[in-house]
Amino acid sequence: MAGFCFVRTFRGAAQLKTDRPRLAIDIGRAGPKDAPFMDFSKLDGLIPAVVQDHKTSEVLMVGFMNEEAWEVTRRTGYVTFFSRTRNTLWTKGETSGNRLAVRDVLIDCDEDTVLVKAERLGDGNVCHTGERTCFFQRAEGVTIP
Amino acid sequence: MAGFCFVRTFRGAAQLKTDRPRLAIDIGRAGPKDAPFMDFSKLDGLIPAVVQDHKTSEVLMVGFMNEEAWEVTRRTGYVTFFSRTRNTLWTKGETSGNRLAVRDVLIDCDEDTVLVKAERLGDGNVCHTGERTCFFQRAEGVTIP
Repeated sequence: MAGFCFVRTFRGAAQLKTDRPRLAIDIGRAGPKDAPFMDFSKLDGLIPAVVQDHKTSEVLMVGFMNEEAWEVTRRTGYVTFFSRTRNTLWTKGETSGNRLAVRDVLIDCDEDTVLVKAERLGDGNVCHTGERTCFFQRAEGVTIP
Repeated sequence: MAGFCFVRTFRGAAQLKTDRPRLAIDIGRAGPKDAPFMDFSKLDGLIPAVVQDHKTSEVLMVGFMNEEAWEVTRRTGYVTFFSRTRNTLWTKGETSGNRLAVRDVLIDCDEDTVLVKAERLGDGNVCHTGERTCFFQRAEGVTIP
């Protein structure tokens, strides 16, 4: 219950969360090392995970985690996603060596998205295209108010 | 490579879209005001949109856009999502006044996720809880390698 309570009580959300029927993955029985509660129900078992460079604050990529990927990320400290196309877990950089070492993890207010602050290992190029970040293309034609 | 992909994205993805195996998108034909190509097919018509403070680089929230929300965001310059629970568009801050004014938009390598750099209007508190960012809870029990 500890992990469960920690997250939910952190800003007093506990009350609001208790009547959330299906979401719940109460993960908490075992103490502070338990997985924080996350809501995998909204996206067919997945949560988006935003990876941000822990030093430069650049947003590097967005992937999806299922419960297992989230657990592996937490346990190993290396960002691990669930590949929807290959239907399997993949630890970022497992072949290239450009792993992402977790430095901090934040959870959003709805507990359905995580923000992982990470250090880039290897050559530091996160994108499979060889770019430093996956967000290397600017959208044109956008109104700037 | 960045310049190449940049051009790719903006003009004319439609053509290649249809038989798009997975990557390539030649974008070249339309004008600069055309909507950048985005791939809404992977997530039932939605793309994740990460909002980052354009000055502090804090990640503020993650929402989802359908094609219409993406178009409205581009056209108005105010971040607009598709609410999955209410099944409707919602412009962030439309009731609170805490709108998010677009300052820059980046597209990821797979063209299925956007990163919106925005300025916080109103009181600047993005989260419905009154917090500055939706990512205000730290996940405990995470291994830091």
